[in-house]
Amino acid sequence: MSGWIRIVGLGPGAEALVTPEVTAALAEATDVVGYIPYVARVAERPGLTLHASDNRVELDRSRHALDMAADGRRVVVVSSGDPGVFAMASAVFEAVEAGPRAWRDLDIEVLPGITAMLAAAARAGAPLGHDFCCINLSDNLKPWGLIERRLRLAAQADFAMAFYNPRSKSRPEGFEKTLTILREECEPERLILFARAVSRPDEAIRIARLSEATPEMADMQTVVLVGSSLTRLIERGGKPIVYTPRFTPE
Amino acid sequence: MSGWIRIVGLGPGAEALVTPEVTAALAEATDVVGYIPYVARVAERPGLTLHASDNRVELDRSRHALDMAADGRRVVVVSSGDPGVFAMASAVFEAVEAGPRAWRDLDIEVLPGITAMLAAAARAGAPLGHDFCCINLSDNLKPWGLIERRLRLAAQADFAMAFYNPRSKSRPEGFEKTLTILREECEPERLILFARAVSRPDEAIRIARLSEATPEMADMQTVVLVGSSLTRLIERGGKPIVYTPRFTPE
Repeated sequence: MSGWIRIVGLGPGAEALVTPEVTAALAEATDVVGYIPYVARVAERPGLTLHASDNRVELDRSRHALDMAADGRRVVVVSSGDPGVFAMASAVFEAVEAGPRAWRDLDIEVLPGITAMLAAAARAGAPLGHDFCCINLSDNLKPWGLIERRLRLAAQADFAMAFYNPRSKSRPEGFEKTLTILREECEPERLILFARAVSRPDEAIRIARLSEATPEMADMQTVVLVGSSLTRLIERGGKPIVYTPRFTPE
Repeated sequence: MSGWIRIVGLGPGAEALVTPEVTAALAEATDVVGYIPYVARVAERPGLTLHASDNRVELDRSRHALDMAADGRRVVVVSSGDPGVFAMASAVFEAVEAGPRAWRDLDIEVLPGITAMLAAAARAGAPLGHDFCCINLSDNLKPWGLIERRLRLAAQADFAMAFYNPRSKSRPEGFEKTLTILREECEPERLILFARAVSRPDEAIRIARLSEATPEMADMQTVVLVGSSLTRLIERGGKPIVYTPRFTPE
């Protein structure tokens, strides 16, 4: 039997945002591997074994998936959003590089998904409609000094920005420091969006000015978007539209 | 009759990468508006009018779509990839902001799609698996000096990078200048990927080192990905894997 591994993105939450390619891979799988809440999104069926594991065991989970594929099983590794954006794809390839030579010759594919920042941007209008950057604010796997350096250079480049993992119980101070850095680098009117649980029943989008933003507006379920200096707000009857124009004057 | 407008992303090309949400919007539409090659991806059917227009008329096209929605029609504006990434969403909102007040109260939604850089990254492995930025290299709508400044700051921040619209017949020199800037800021071994027509029958992925890259490797159908200083190549029997690890040492 010829095994394979597909590292897939389930999108931000809604079924209507899962690509047909990912749905087809799940239908052919014998095993699904991933973090507990993401595996819980996969329907049970005869012939499919669900392997849910806790956070922060990404390398163990990757090795388990690779082992099963080497044994001839059809393994889907699930992430929310896109698997290549602060998710399982890098972890699996770290395991491949450090693992037995035979793992390199496995049939491995990455199937993209709708990543949280683009789902959030769509809900708000088009805040990432011009050049932007994407930063993971967790300092679990990198020094805080690098995050600070990237934030300052991104602001100086006038990128719009998307932040993943802005704040957790174990790191309550990181996002407060982020807001302080942004206030040093950007004007107080800069638009900032807090998008929580996008496309899920408890979705909440909050639009603020940098001067009004507080650390409590973000948690681990939130993706934060910061406009460039040109990002605009269109007031209207319903929720306002936030977008970044295509044109930058000389 | 109550009209609406949906600004949707068709993904990079393959049908299997179109979200069910976008497919459903197209099924309910009375009118589809967009650039000729993207409208050509929508199947004709009775009751659906296709309005294909040329490149560089994004604002005219947006006003046409808004006019029709105000007249009670169900209008889908199509982009390839994601509509919020260098595509139609910003153009429509520019038209809304400058247009009649009534346009603001239209039922407008943006439906995200798989953007080219994430489809390309998935094909190569996980080159955008850590902090990254996304830059449109066209200087049609912004000064070249801003592009250069963003390139240098992004390299100094050690972001991985994705470039859209790297090179066209009318701008043959921009990508050559980009390579020169990258060579000044990055080491010669830096990994660079040229992903053309991802998920389409003529897909071609080329992996190079910065020292080997030439302007001819890119055209308007290409998205270019540049690794960070930590991005790695895993050699194997088939095409190699390129990925950026999650961990950054102190």
